[in-house]
Amino acid sequence: MALRACLRGKRGLTGVFSQLSSCSHGRVSPVLVAQQRNNSTSQKVQVDFDQSTGVAVLRMQNPPVNSLSLEFLTEICINLEKLEMDKSCRGLIVTSNRPKVFSAGLDIFEMYGKTPERCAEFWKAVQEMWLKLYGSSMATIAAINGSSPAGGCLMCMTCDYRIMADNPRYTIGLNETLLGIVAPFWFKDTMTNTLGHRTTELALQLGSLYSPAEALKIGLVDQVVPEDQVLTTATEAMSKWLAIPDHARQITKSMMRKSTIDRLTANRESDIKNFVGFVTKASVQKSLGMYLEMLKNRKA
Amino acid sequence: MALRACLRGKRGLTGVFSQLSSCSHGRVSPVLVAQQRNNSTSQKVQVDFDQSTGVAVLRMQNPPVNSLSLEFLTEICINLEKLEMDKSCRGLIVTSNRPKVFSAGLDIFEMYGKTPERCAEFWKAVQEMWLKLYGSSMATIAAINGSSPAGGCLMCMTCDYRIMADNPRYTIGLNETLLGIVAPFWFKDTMTNTLGHRTTELALQLGSLYSPAEALKIGLVDQVVPEDQVLTTATEAMSKWLAIPDHARQITKSMMRKSTIDRLTANRESDIKNFVGFVTKASVQKSLGMYLEMLKNRKA
Amino acid sequence: MALRACLRGKRGLTGVFSQLSSCSHGRVSPVLVAQQRNNSTSQKVQVDFDQSTGVAVLRMQNPPVNSLSLEFLTEICINLEKLEMDKSCRGLIVTSNRPKVFSAGLDIFEMYGKTPERCAEFWKAVQEMWLKLYGSSMATIAAINGSSPAGGCLMCMTCDYRIMADNPRYTIGLNETLLGIVAPFWFKDTMTNTLGHRTTELALQLGSLYSPAEALKIGLVDQVVPEDQVLTTATEAMSKWLAIPDHARQITKSMMRKSTIDRLTANRESDIKNFVGFVTKASVQKSLGMYLEMLKNRKA
Repeated sequence: MALRACLRGKRGLTGVFSQLSSCSHGRVSPVLVAQQRNNSTSQKVQVDFDQSTGVAVLRMQNPPVNSLSLEFLTEICINLEKLEMDKSCRGLIVTSNRPKVFSAGLDIFEMYGKTPERCAEFWKAVQEMWLKLYGSSMATIAAINGSSPAGGCLMCMTCDYRIMADNPRYTIGLNETLLGIVAPFWFKDTMTNTLGHRTTELALQLGSLYSPAEALKIGLVDQVVPEDQVLTTATEAMSKWLAIPDHARQITKSMMRKSTIDRLTANRESDIKNFVGFVTKASVQKSLGMYLEMLKNRKA
Repeated sequence: MALRACLRGKRGLTGVFSQLSSCSHGRVSPVLVAQQRNNSTSQKVQVDFDQSTGVAVLRMQNPPVNSLSLEFLTEICINLEKLEMDKSCRGLIVTSNRPKVFSAGLDIFEMYGKTPERCAEFWKAVQEMWLKLYGSSMATIAAINGSSPAGGCLMCMTCDYRIMADNPRYTIGLNETLLGIVAPFWFKDTMTNTLGHRTTELALQLGSLYSPAEALKIGLVDQVVPEDQVLTTATEAMSKWLAIPDHARQITKSMMRKSTIDRLTANRESDIKNFVGFVTKASVQKSLGMYLEMLKNRKA
Repeated sequence: MALRACLRGKRGLTGVFSQLSSCSHGRVSPVLVAQQRNNSTSQKVQVDFDQSTGVAVLRMQNPPVNSLSLEFLTEICINLEKLEMDKSCRGLIVTSNRPKVFSAGLDIFEMYGKTPERCAEFWKAVQEMWLKLYGSSMATIAAINGSSPAGGCLMCMTCDYRIMADNPRYTIGLNETLLGIVAPFWFKDTMTNTLGHRTTELALQLGSLYSPAEALKIGLVDQVVPEDQVLTTATEAMSKWLAIPDHARQITKSMMRKSTIDRLTANRESDIKNFVGFVTKASVQKSLGMYLEMLKNRKA
C-alpha cells in the first residue's frame, strides 16, 4: 500500500522506480552478519541472535520492497514470538536487507480481488505484528536504512528508538490519505504517542512523507546518521538500553503503552470488520484496480 | 471580552485604542474580492466562494473589532452551515475585513446586564460556532491578519492550518485569566490539542498573548508571513490540502477531533448552565460594569 | 532513593560523594532570609512568608541531601497545609538550604528493613506531598539550586514554573529504572503532562538524568540562570504569576490538573498496596541491602 502511495508523494515517481529496479540485486552484506551466533533464516526474515550481547537483529528481505503481505507478516510474527520467549534475548534491532527501502508498508495486493475472509486474515496479521512489536518486552530499535512509508513507518514507531539513514531521498510517514485511504485508529494512536496531537493531525491529514532531517526535527526519528553507520549506531544505542535492568524497563514501557494496546485489544474484531467492509467495497476495489493497472503500465 | 482583555495585556492600552480608532475606515479591498463568483454578503459576514477552486473565503466585518456578539455568531454559523452543505465547497479560509484585528473575541456586552435566558442563548451560539468550525468537513485555514485574543484565538485554533501576519503589534492567545475569567474546558481542550499539555498550562494560567514570532515558536500558528501575503499564502496552502482526497482527509480529521467534540456535545447544557451561573453573579456583573465604565472613561 | 540512584547515573560516583562531603557545612545564608517577616522554622523545613508580597519561600534543610524521609515529608506537608489555609499567602517558592542538591528524592532507608505498616505510612506521605503540591491553589515555583533526581524531580514537576541553576554538574530526572525500580503511574502522569508522551517514554525507560541545559531543551525546566540568581529570578517570575487574579488562575490550574489528581485519589489504597508489596519482597530487600552495603563501603 505504502510504496505505491509514494507515487503520489512529494518525491515523485522517479524515486520509486529506482527502488523497484534496484531490488533484484540486494543481498545480505557479509559484514552485517559477522556477529551472528544463533540465527534462524526463513525466506523472508533473517534473524541473527548474538547470545553474548543478548541482541537479535531481524532483517526483512521480502523482495522487492519488503511489502507486508500476509505471508511476510506471519513470518515476522513467528520470529518475534520466538525471540520474545527466549529470555536470553533482551534487545531487538529491526532493519532491512533490501536496498533503499526499510518497508514499503502493507501489500496492496492483499486488498485487491480477495475474499472477505482472506482480507480479515490479512488484517488480523497486521494487528498481530503491531501488538507484538509495540508490546514487546525487549528493548527495540529500528535501524531505518531506507524509505519507510505507511505500514513501514508504523513498524518504526512501535520501536523504542529510531535511527535513520541520512539520505534525503528516503522518506518516512503515514501517507495513507494520499491514496484515498485512512490510517486506522491504532496507527493514529501510535503516531500521537510519538509526535503529539497537533503534529499527528497535520501529518495524517496531509499524508506527509518526511525526509530524515524533517523526521528528526518533528521527533519521528531520534537520530539521523550516515547510511553506512545505521546498524552500528543502533548496536551502540542498544547497549545503553540494555544497561537498564530489564524488569524495571519492561514495567515502565508497559505503563507507557498499555492503554494504547488495550484499546486495540478491546476492538480487534470491530477493527477487522471496518477494514474488510471498507476494502471490499466495489468503489474501493475499482480504484485499487485502476491504481494497480496504472502501476503496471508505468512499469512497462 | 478579548479586545478589552488586551487592555491589561502586555501590549498595553496604546495598541488597543489605535485599533479602535482605525476601525471606522476599514473596507473590503477590491483586490481581495476579485476572484469571487458565487458570494453571499450579509452585513457582518462576507463570503466569496470560488467554484473553480472549491474554496470559500469568509471575511468577518463586524465593526469595530469583530467582537463575537450573538448576532454576529449567528450570521457566521448560518454561513458555515451553507458552505458545509454545499458539496462543491471543499476548503474554507477564514479572515478579517477589519484592519489590525482578526477577532477581538467574545463580546463583553453580551454578558453585562442581560437576562439569564439571553446569556444562555449567547453561549449556545459560541458553542455552535466552535462545533461547526472544529468539526467542519472542509479543509479550514485561518488567515490571521490582525490581533486575535480569546475567542478570536479559539476560532483560529479550530482551523486545520494557521497563517499569521508578521506584525509584532499583533498578538494571539487565550488571555481570559487576565480579565479574571476562565476559559471553558473546550477552549482548553482545543489549545491542548494544538500546543500540548504543558504549554497550555502556562498559556492559560498566565493568560499569555503571543507575538506572531512567539506563536510560531510554540506552534500556535503554522506560518508567519508578511502582512500583505497572508491571504495569498493561505490560498497556496489550501491547494496542498485540497490535493488530498476529501473522504480520506475528512475521516482522518474526524478521528483526530471526535473525542474532543463529543465531550462538549455531551456536556452542552451543563456548560451553558456554568457560564450563565458565573456571568450573572452579582460580583461578576459588578466587576464587568466597572470594567466597561473604565473603558468608556478611557475612550472619552 | 534518588541520590543513591545517581551513583549509577552518567555523572558517576565522584559527583555524588562530593555532594555528601559538602553537606556538613551548608547553612542558611543570611541574604536569603533577609526578607522574612512571618516565618516558621522547624528542624527540617524553613518557611519565610513575606506578607507584603504574599509570597512564602519554603527551604528544605534535611541533611545531608534533603532525602524525603517520612519525618521530613510530614513536616513539608504540615507547612504546605498551613500556607494553603492562609488566604494571604498567594505564592510559594520551593528551594533548598542544602548545598548542591535540591532534593535527592525518596529516602531509601524508609524502604529497607521496615514493617509493611511503616512502608505504607511512608508511601502515604509521599502521595500526600504530591497531592498538596500538584493541587496547590498557590502559584508555585521551584527554585532548583542543586541536583534533583527521582522524588526531587517529582517535587519540581508539581510546581507551576521551574528555574534551575546553570551548573552542569547538577542533574534532574526520574532515574528510578537505573536502580531497578519503577516510577509509579502518577510520577509518570506528572512527567507526561510536563514533557509529553514520547519524551517521557524515553526519559523513564532510560532513567535519564538531564543537565540544566538538556532539561531546558526538553521542557523539564523553564529557565536556567546563574546559580546565585535562582532565587531572585524565582521572585521576579512570581510577580508575573501574582499579577493574575487568583480565582481565575486557580480554576484554570485545577482544570488542567484535576484528572491527573483524581486518578491518584481514586487509587491511593491500591497504589500503597503495590508499593508495599514490591518493596517488602525478599528479592527487593536483598538488593536494597546489597546496595546500601556498597554505599557504606564506598563512603568508608
